[in-house]
Amino acid sequence: MSARRLKVGCAGLGRMGKRHALNFLQRTPRAELVAVSTPDDSELEWGKVHLAPYGVKLYKNYDDMLKHEGLEAVVVASATAVHAEQAIKAIEADKNVLCEKPLSTSVEISQSVLDAAAKKPHLKVMCGFSRRFDASYRDAHSKMSAGAIGTASVIRSQTCDKLDPTGFFVAYAEFSGGIFVDCSIHDIDLALWFFGQDSKVKSVSAVGITAVEPDLRKHNDRDNAVGLVEFYDGRIAYFYASRMMAAGQEDSTEIIGTKGKLAVNTQPAINLVNIFDESGLRRELPQHYYDRFEYAFVTEANEFTACCIEDTPVPVKLEGAVQAVRIGAALQESLITGEKINFDQQGNRIPMARL
Amino acid sequence: MSARRLKVGCAGLGRMGKRHALNFLQRTPRAELVAVSTPDDSELEWGKVHLAPYGVKLYKNYDDMLKHEGLEAVVVASATAVHAEQAIKAIEADKNVLCEKPLSTSVEISQSVLDAAAKKPHLKVMCGFSRRFDASYRDAHSKMSAGAIGTASVIRSQTCDKLDPTGFFVAYAEFSGGIFVDCSIHDIDLALWFFGQDSKVKSVSAVGITAVEPDLRKHNDRDNAVGLVEFYDGRIAYFYASRMMAAGQEDSTEIIGTKGKLAVNTQPAINLVNIFDESGLRRELPQHYYDRFEYAFVTEANEFTACCIEDTPVPVKLEGAVQAVRIGAALQESLITGEKINFDQQGNRIPMARL
Amino acid sequence: MSARRLKVGCAGLGRMGKRHALNFLQRTPRAELVAVSTPDDSELEWGKVHLAPYGVKLYKNYDDMLKHEGLEAVVVASATAVHAEQAIKAIEADKNVLCEKPLSTSVEISQSVLDAAAKKPHLKVMCGFSRRFDASYRDAHSKMSAGAIGTASVIRSQTCDKLDPTGFFVAYAEFSGGIFVDCSIHDIDLALWFFGQDSKVKSVSAVGITAVEPDLRKHNDRDNAVGLVEFYDGRIAYFYASRMMAAGQEDSTEIIGTKGKLAVNTQPAINLVNIFDESGLRRELPQHYYDRFEYAFVTEANEFTACCIEDTPVPVKLEGAVQAVRIGAALQESLITGEKINFDQQGNRIPMARL
Amino acid sequence: MSARRLKVGCAGLGRMGKRHALNFLQRTPRAELVAVSTPDDSELEWGKVHLAPYGVKLYKNYDDMLKHEGLEAVVVASATAVHAEQAIKAIEADKNVLCEKPLSTSVEISQSVLDAAAKKPHLKVMCGFSRRFDASYRDAHSKMSAGAIGTASVIRSQTCDKLDPTGFFVAYAEFSGGIFVDCSIHDIDLALWFFGQDSKVKSVSAVGITAVEPDLRKHNDRDNAVGLVEFYDGRIAYFYASRMMAAGQEDSTEIIGTKGKLAVNTQPAINLVNIFDESGLRRELPQHYYDRFEYAFVTEANEFTACCIEDTPVPVKLEGAVQAVRIGAALQESLITGEKINFDQQGNRIPMARL
Repeated sequence: MSARRLKVGCAGLGRMGKRHALNFLQRTPRAELVAVSTPDDSELEWGKVHLAPYGVKLYKNYDDMLKHEGLEAVVVASATAVHAEQAIKAIEADKNVLCEKPLSTSVEISQSVLDAAAKKPHLKVMCGFSRRFDASYRDAHSKMSAGAIGTASVIRSQTCDKLDPTGFFVAYAEFSGGIFVDCSIHDIDLALWFFGQDSKVKSVSAVGITAVEPDLRKHNDRDNAVGLVEFYDGRIAYFYASRMMAAGQEDSTEIIGTKGKLAVNTQPAINLVNIFDESGLRRELPQHYYDRFEYAFVTEANEFTACCIEDTPVPVKLEGAVQAVRIGAALQESLITGEKINFDQQGNRIPMARL
Repeated sequence: MSARRLKVGCAGLGRMGKRHALNFLQRTPRAELVAVSTPDDSELEWGKVHLAPYGVKLYKNYDDMLKHEGLEAVVVASATAVHAEQAIKAIEADKNVLCEKPLSTSVEISQSVLDAAAKKPHLKVMCGFSRRFDASYRDAHSKMSAGAIGTASVIRSQTCDKLDPTGFFVAYAEFSGGIFVDCSIHDIDLALWFFGQDSKVKSVSAVGITAVEPDLRKHNDRDNAVGLVEFYDGRIAYFYASRMMAAGQEDSTEIIGTKGKLAVNTQPAINLVNIFDESGLRRELPQHYYDRFEYAFVTEANEFTACCIEDTPVPVKLEGAVQAVRIGAALQESLITGEKINFDQQGNRIPMARL
Repeated sequence: MSARRLKVGCAGLGRMGKRHALNFLQRTPRAELVAVSTPDDSELEWGKVHLAPYGVKLYKNYDDMLKHEGLEAVVVASATAVHAEQAIKAIEADKNVLCEKPLSTSVEISQSVLDAAAKKPHLKVMCGFSRRFDASYRDAHSKMSAGAIGTASVIRSQTCDKLDPTGFFVAYAEFSGGIFVDCSIHDIDLALWFFGQDSKVKSVSAVGITAVEPDLRKHNDRDNAVGLVEFYDGRIAYFYASRMMAAGQEDSTEIIGTKGKLAVNTQPAINLVNIFDESGLRRELPQHYYDRFEYAFVTEANEFTACCIEDTPVPVKLEGAVQAVRIGAALQESLITGEKINFDQQGNRIPMARL
Repeated sequence: MSARRLKVGCAGLGRMGKRHALNFLQRTPRAELVAVSTPDDSELEWGKVHLAPYGVKLYKNYDDMLKHEGLEAVVVASATAVHAEQAIKAIEADKNVLCEKPLSTSVEISQSVLDAAAKKPHLKVMCGFSRRFDASYRDAHSKMSAGAIGTASVIRSQTCDKLDPTGFFVAYAEFSGGIFVDCSIHDIDLALWFFGQDSKVKSVSAVGITAVEPDLRKHNDRDNAVGLVEFYDGRIAYFYASRMMAAGQEDSTEIIGTKGKLAVNTQPAINLVNIFDESGLRRELPQHYYDRFEYAFVTEANEFTACCIEDTPVPVKLEGAVQAVRIGAALQESLITGEKINFDQQGNRIPMARL
């Protein structure tokens, strides 16, 4: 192991940007956070207190940060709307890129990141699907790969947020791409990971409701939705996404095979404490996805860094990130139109009349 | 409480018939099992050993049993194909009826039992959806009714059998009505119970695979299937049915409301024993649905008996049994055709063109 | 199987007496409850409503009930203080006996029941240790017997009642024999069952506190106590008993062997419902021991009945009931004196000086 | 927050030393691992590969390391036999000290560390009881402190290692101080933490067996032991320690109060994966204590570092470390002699005659 450290910059210091910046600063021994950028003044203030004392340079302008002397890699943790643009700029500036999910809510724009990366095969470009770095999902995946459940045939996966009583997610829905692109994208990625990245979609269908926030309909979104995805090799994935959980974050997954089943987080808990009181026996849940996946993000930062230093393939292929957006967007369309969408084996839609 | 006992006959002594007969003989204090009927010689032999010594009269012919002196009620536990015919005959003979589910795999034939019952309003006619009598489901229902989860909005429910390596269920599929009518009928009934018996279906769609038994396709069936049901009042139910569980019977249900969630049997266990050994910490599962629901069947027998004696309404309305078959059959059709099926608010199908 | 039914009488219609009477009346097909006795008028009133209509004869006097025509067996479910006397009378009147635990809080009086039974070897005399009939404990015992955990070496077992805010148990403590004789007697019996009925005690020691009811000290009792029992064959059992659980009844047991561990009810639950709400994920507990062991009592009634009819050995040997009281009383003594009590291999106490 | 980093040296590169060294090198942002020492050549080799490339200086001699330019703090992670000596030397050299538990297996020697520290009140000297830094224990402690369970009255706690089939722990027992000093020391520390550091012991008693390793008796040790500790303020703690768990590490604790109970890790699991297969539903356990407490050690390193930099009190008082050894040694003595040991309120033993 060499002692050289990767020089990293972080774009964006919002909720996730702060976390990425601190993870690269403090919990990624082989990386050195050298720069951050954000156009937001209050975020810059935060950076002055928490990052600058450790020698991290603050930039108001992303393009300026890209020119930071010796910068080798960029973490794109800004608003989704600029993910793709910033990622492409970084690639063009010859930087390795770790981009927060999704690349874009648009399939075409997502693809443009791939196209840019394809021109620079020496760079590491990865979309950060955090669950791929979670110890429990990895354990499940390695057990499946070792044959523990026979042939994985059905996946049930859900991303369910605790209800945010401020209703913030209503305004957020205008740009999020919808509940399937914003939430279920993780579950879709898991399905592609467990079923194989090249699984071909045969059909998608979805239904949804607005149980707590009717205003979501203005943005063609729902607060609860269920989606079905059929694959051509005789497998099924079905997803549930919700914005109204009472107890906390409930992201769980079952991989059902011909000889067994692996269940991840179907009995959620924030820690190992059980409370016995007049309400019975209870435990508390993670309240947000970062409570649940904090260490996955740390692992992600460390593994991305190691790939850059050692020039090894990134653990999450970029193609999958586009495929996940494609499936998510189709589910979202089905959710709104109420129509099932069918695909041929080349991935082209089959118009209704051809059915 | 009067000490009078209801005179009951049982049609069929197959797997479920034996259980019903013994439950009415031994575990239903207010009932007296007076007669059973079966055309099957080996079943009759069993009856000679286990029932006759207690004064139960054995009949080879169902019609003869109906004429048994003083008979007040009939449990129809024969093959599904004759459920409706035997139930109607019993009604016409002025007997109360507890009929195993489903009334029929055909909506029309199911409806004919309702029509017969409507002519004899003084009789108790009930379809035995056993989960309605299970202590855990009842606890969940009463918590929901007391407002514990706000408005119930989404139901996830599954009926998943342990893999039967004999493949018996392939031959069985010829007459079962398919996996949605045979297995998911329980989940559909639960959705109607928790959402309200009068919930109007807006659409159904389903997909399925044959992961372990390709031969099921001969009978237009699948071994794993997922179905989506949308209701007009902004609720969703989604169902999973499987024939290939490795660990045992896994029938579980979640009722998700605007203020909480109730989960029934999402952590299955046959009893309260945890085993710590080199494989980790484990517990065993029920192997068959009767392992899971034995006491529900006993409660069903006792409550049906009490209704007959005290002339009170049966706890499961007969209309629901027809509605459950209607939904199950539509899901099964969608499973096979691959098409989503839409309904108007009167319950009539909306042809594709009208969408 | 013969259809003959055992004629049973029940002494006492207090809390447990009512339950035993109804179990023998309604849930023990091979038994016939023919008589009950109680000196208490309100209990007699209850019997008039719930038992008399089914032909059960009510007696105010126990001795009169013993003369009931054709009576074959007696369930002694009266106050502990008269258990032994009534059991001995029944034995002398040539009746089979199922006696509630403990035979007596006194070792000598307990032994007198054994002596009486020894003179009538044709009779079935059993002390009702209900946990021996519980499906989970039986599963654990059969797994241990099949070698699942190697050599069982350590047992941890607890009987912990929900706090009764009326403080009833303070008055009750005057006659209960103390927390080890009243509560831990079950755990002691389990230790003898799992370790072998002939296990020889080497030492006992105990400590206790009054965390919620200082008044218990008047009766030489405590509300929380921990006891240690050493056996001569290199095994240990340790017990915890409490009167102050907040969530419900918590009776749990671990059997720890050289190759594994069996844990019974270490994650208690009243049923299979999990509730997700703002307090997290919770389930409710049984509130009283009968919530937990109801079906064990039904099994006990059925098995005792079968032994009487078929003249087979009772499943719980009477000797064990005396041994359990002996250990419980020694623990209680140690709890109060603060001294460890040592025994030689013949079961005689070793005075301190001989140590 | 200042960006200054604490210069740390680590004594010992055995199993725990390696972990501490890497934690201070990579996972303690405010610390800088500058030096390590070990007399062991193979450990030095490991250091050359894993530490030296990052600028860590290797010493064969502890005293030399103490003279390392600018060294501010020492982590003592060597063999228990030299813990105290090295800690005292570091204190005398004016270094802050984080010492692995126990300070010593001898009460007197443990006290000598305290005495040395008392002369240098400006130094931070802490004994590393890792569970105090575990998120679950901390959550339980803060819930208790907030009144969630009323008055904590009884603690049950166990440290149970997975059986090491090499029998390494037999040789190890010669110097470990015995199972109560080596394993239960953690549980004793927890009892002091939850009950209050100043809790006065009234009595201790213990029993033990050698179920798998009779050779332990040579070293006055046992492989399974149960100990009881009575405190003068009406509280009880009882401990179980074992070397023969089959499934993995099982360190669990219950804090039982007058209004509720907190249970930590009573349902152990290595992660959030449930496996459903023919053996039922199972999950895997941590195999060793570091699997369970890895992040607690990281937190410990970070908090100790912060205390040194910011000159705040250490979170674990040194007095407790001596008190824990005192209780552990008394339990160990009782385990071997079979006698209960009583103390007066000043902590002096009460000879038997005075009882």
